[in-house]
Amino acid sequence: MKMSGLFGATLHTAPGSSESAGHRQMLRAGMVRQLAQGIFSYLPLGWRSVRKIERILREEMAAVGGQELSMPVAQPAELWQASGRYDTVGAELARFADRRGRGMVLAMTHEEAVTELARTEVGSYRDLPRMVFQLQTKFRDDARPRAGLIRVREFVMKDAYSLDRDAAGLARQYANQYRAYFRVFGRCGVPALAVASEVGMMGGELAHEFMYPTPIGEDTLLLCDACGYRANRQVATFAKPTPPAEAPRPMRRVATPNAATVAELAAAAGVGPDRIAKAVFVQADLGATEEPVIGVVRGDMDLNEAKLAAALGAADLRPMTTDEITAIGAVAGYGSPVGLTGVRVVVDELVAATPNLLAGANLDGYHLRDVNVGRDFTPETVRDIVAARAGDGCPRCGAALRTTRGVEVGQIFKLGDRYSAALGATFTDADGVRRPVQMGCYGIGVGRLLGCAAEAHHDERGLTLPITIAPYQVHLCQLGDVAAAAAQTLYERLGAAGVEVLYDDRGQRAGSQFADADLIGAPLRATIGARSLERGEVELRDRATGGSWPVPLATAAGAIGAAVADRLAQANAVGPVDLPPELATG
Amino acid sequence: MKMSGLFGATLHTAPGSSESAGHRQMLRAGMVRQLAQGIFSYLPLGWRSVRKIERILREEMAAVGGQELSMPVAQPAELWQASGRYDTVGAELARFADRRGRGMVLAMTHEEAVTELARTEVGSYRDLPRMVFQLQTKFRDDARPRAGLIRVREFVMKDAYSLDRDAAGLARQYANQYRAYFRVFGRCGVPALAVASEVGMMGGELAHEFMYPTPIGEDTLLLCDACGYRANRQVATFAKPTPPAEAPRPMRRVATPNAATVAELAAAAGVGPDRIAKAVFVQADLGATEEPVIGVVRGDMDLNEAKLAAALGAADLRPMTTDEITAIGAVAGYGSPVGLTGVRVVVDELVAATPNLLAGANLDGYHLRDVNVGRDFTPETVRDIVAARAGDGCPRCGAALRTTRGVEVGQIFKLGDRYSAALGATFTDADGVRRPVQMGCYGIGVGRLLGCAAEAHHDERGLTLPITIAPYQVHLCQLGDVAAAAAQTLYERLGAAGVEVLYDDRGQRAGSQFADADLIGAPLRATIGARSLERGEVELRDRATGGSWPVPLATAAGAIGAAVADRLAQANAVGPVDLPPELATG
Repeated sequence: MKMSGLFGATLHTAPGSSESAGHRQMLRAGMVRQLAQGIFSYLPLGWRSVRKIERILREEMAAVGGQELSMPVAQPAELWQASGRYDTVGAELARFADRRGRGMVLAMTHEEAVTELARTEVGSYRDLPRMVFQLQTKFRDDARPRAGLIRVREFVMKDAYSLDRDAAGLARQYANQYRAYFRVFGRCGVPALAVASEVGMMGGELAHEFMYPTPIGEDTLLLCDACGYRANRQVATFAKPTPPAEAPRPMRRVATPNAATVAELAAAAGVGPDRIAKAVFVQADLGATEEPVIGVVRGDMDLNEAKLAAALGAADLRPMTTDEITAIGAVAGYGSPVGLTGVRVVVDELVAATPNLLAGANLDGYHLRDVNVGRDFTPETVRDIVAARAGDGCPRCGAALRTTRGVEVGQIFKLGDRYSAALGATFTDADGVRRPVQMGCYGIGVGRLLGCAAEAHHDERGLTLPITIAPYQVHLCQLGDVAAAAAQTLYERLGAAGVEVLYDDRGQRAGSQFADADLIGAPLRATIGARSLERGEVELRDRATGGSWPVPLATAAGAIGAAVADRLAQANAVGPVDLPPELATG
Repeated sequence: MKMSGLFGATLHTAPGSSESAGHRQMLRAGMVRQLAQGIFSYLPLGWRSVRKIERILREEMAAVGGQELSMPVAQPAELWQASGRYDTVGAELARFADRRGRGMVLAMTHEEAVTELARTEVGSYRDLPRMVFQLQTKFRDDARPRAGLIRVREFVMKDAYSLDRDAAGLARQYANQYRAYFRVFGRCGVPALAVASEVGMMGGELAHEFMYPTPIGEDTLLLCDACGYRANRQVATFAKPTPPAEAPRPMRRVATPNAATVAELAAAAGVGPDRIAKAVFVQADLGATEEPVIGVVRGDMDLNEAKLAAALGAADLRPMTTDEITAIGAVAGYGSPVGLTGVRVVVDELVAATPNLLAGANLDGYHLRDVNVGRDFTPETVRDIVAARAGDGCPRCGAALRTTRGVEVGQIFKLGDRYSAALGATFTDADGVRRPVQMGCYGIGVGRLLGCAAEAHHDERGLTLPITIAPYQVHLCQLGDVAAAAAQTLYERLGAAGVEVLYDDRGQRAGSQFADADLIGAPLRATIGARSLERGEVELRDRATGGSWPVPLATAAGAIGAAVADRLAQANAVGPVDLPPELATG
């Protein structure tokens, strides 16, 4: 491609504001433009990177038996009502009425559609296993689009779906995708780590997220360097301390005026925070209804809202208002489940095991001492609902956990029969019995992956994307008209050799050409000017390291082609992927 | 691909009803499945054909300098309000509110979005000309989805956009696309012809449609075999007869009871149908308002609604109700513009030139004789608004026109500054003056093209798609376990040679295998069974002709590979494309 004809301008400064440095460089390089909040157009340079990522995805899906198909974006609401998600998924799901007034949705994911295909295409066990995938536009009306391509509303997703006879088949395909994902991220130059995650709106049995660790990430990960335990904070567990062994004492009321915080309360009452039962009042969104819930955790720990929501089967939680707290008979600041009825109570397992706790008296200025769960109030559920923190003990080996922030670049789910049972996708097994197809789903957002790659590969001058996904492999600079003929010849020879070259034929000054070359960031820059011509050489320069070296002009096409092929092979080489213990199969 | 692992079932009979025989065979072959009215999923076989069409489109767009990019489907309503189309386009444009209540649309085409990019990326004449294109999902809420993939609501479109400095540049790029379209249709095996068409909701100056002639088409085309004139009936003109030379006579009222048709009226009044002024009462949809309009054509001709709508700038027309006719002071069955005020009147040019016409008296049971346009009523507009018919004279050479029905498989538009002026996409020309970018747009629906190819290439046994777009090039049948090793070896050798093979390894009987092979319709079938093994041969069979011939097993991979390459080269060879007179440039 000659830059004189390229559509898309490089910019001195990025338009608008972006929290992400990688995204700013993509804007400056003329890769993408924002059309509306969280909605982007890809210019030709950016689209080349997307297409390369798509090719990598297609190759890795094919390598695990994936067959590409395509399912529609606009879908009838009935299909989502049949799965139950029309009601359980919130405003993220865009809904509209068609010209006849029929309810439609913009599919944010395709479990319903693929299950419908499984229903019609899979008749017997001979039609299983199968792995299908697509690269298709998704619309998710995210409440907080941010960080350029990393959190958007419209995007292309690679979504794959496995169809199996049984749990063992699903486990095999799930493990195949797990490994394929590391190959994808490795080839795209995005360092990713897999963590256990919650199933969320997908439902199902088990899920892993693939995380690119970066300070701009919104997720917090708990990692154990000793044994390799890795989990999203939403589901991370830890080795909880052993509760003290004490005989229950009689409950009694104590005055605790002006104790607004746990620390103040502990000081005022003369107990440690680990002996305080902290009540958190929330309203749980259960789709059709909203219900008041009290979560109780120890004063030395934090409630994990995701765990509490999962315990309740709630789509979302929000804090109660003071009026709502009053309405259930509690007192804000002095609340506890003691003496309340008609409200769901979920207690952390450590609270249930700790005797003689300090809890709110539901009376302004008073708490209760020596409260004991089971004796003084009866929770609906006892479960782990606290958040793991850096320094907590690893649940597997006990070593101290550390935290990092990350962006989710992919997620895989064991769905089991969550959708096949609801939508009637069954098959006749070898024993003649009809069984629901066992399903898994596996997603990677293409644009987000590019966004993470740009975040991982840029410097102050521009992008340094890996050669596997950079828009062009070689940036050819021609310094002055004297070099025009030689540059044109080299451009043609490289093209004939299959090397992707962006040729700056615009006659601009060297500094301007080099700045654009650094900004767009082809891994290799080749420069021909009067001085190099005199020496019969082309100057090559490595974008990432800044190192440069001459090659003879006469054989430059071959040398550059070999360098490109060598770098491609290296960048595409991904070592073997180890499965975590929970996925190890026989 | 081994059929034992293929996702998607072949069917004995097509599900549901389809007016299109080609679509029935695609359903039977397991290419597509309907998810909702006008909304389809593509199974892996069908998706392979789509991807091949997409590759052809990419190659032909690149050959005329097209750069691929991608613009979003979900777009803010403001952008469509700025172009004016938010109001002028009807229910076909799907609208929804995002989670913040902001108006959004599902883009049915991308003129607004590309103009927005032109606004930011094109600064000076040095940034022009450009040609950009995308392959992107579109949603058009068609009122009458039909004929399988031919008329759907969601589809992938190749939409290209040209950006130029001036009309001459636009004319060059328009001609390039015109030629590229014939190459695309030729390579996909769809015989197409180009006709002049109306610009419709796109606006702009000039448009051509590419039509696949078929009885299932909804469009009527007027063709001149003598000089090559070709036009959609919506815009087709013809050589109108010379009106009689007569002096105007005084207008007078005559009783015409029980004359319901033009023929009855002509007989009753003793005049020829060519001397009757037929008034057609319609309501014109002008976006914000609806207005009553009377169109007047001669009794021996038919009103062309598309021409009348174009003359009015109306999005749509509907017949007036009797009450609406009464409301403007006219009388149904005896109506004319004579004596009416406050209603727009559009008169065909031949009516205006014909003296002494018979017209309605706006009085039950009466007409007026010797009505003369200009004297007895004054039309707002005089223009050609009648429909050309088979047998009418060609407007260029006078020979008799013939008609055929067709499906539009592509359309190209000269937009000029229709969008660039409205959205501010200007550039600084060489003389320092800012001018609007001259634009063109060029669309091909990918699924519709596949639908037309299937319509053109099928028989009662299944599909006979050309080798360029058939899902697989070779269908390999293995008759009995005795042939398993030889078939597997040939399968691997063909794969290594880059031949796309669908290998029926399911162990079914020959008849069943051959039926599936005919249904899916790979251009070549290769069969290995006990008898052919004894002879050391593979039987090849041509799907389209039914002819068969043996090749030696030992060299079969090479022979089949050569046959495939030869057929591909032939199918991809498209002769030179002649431009029609209206596009001939210097």
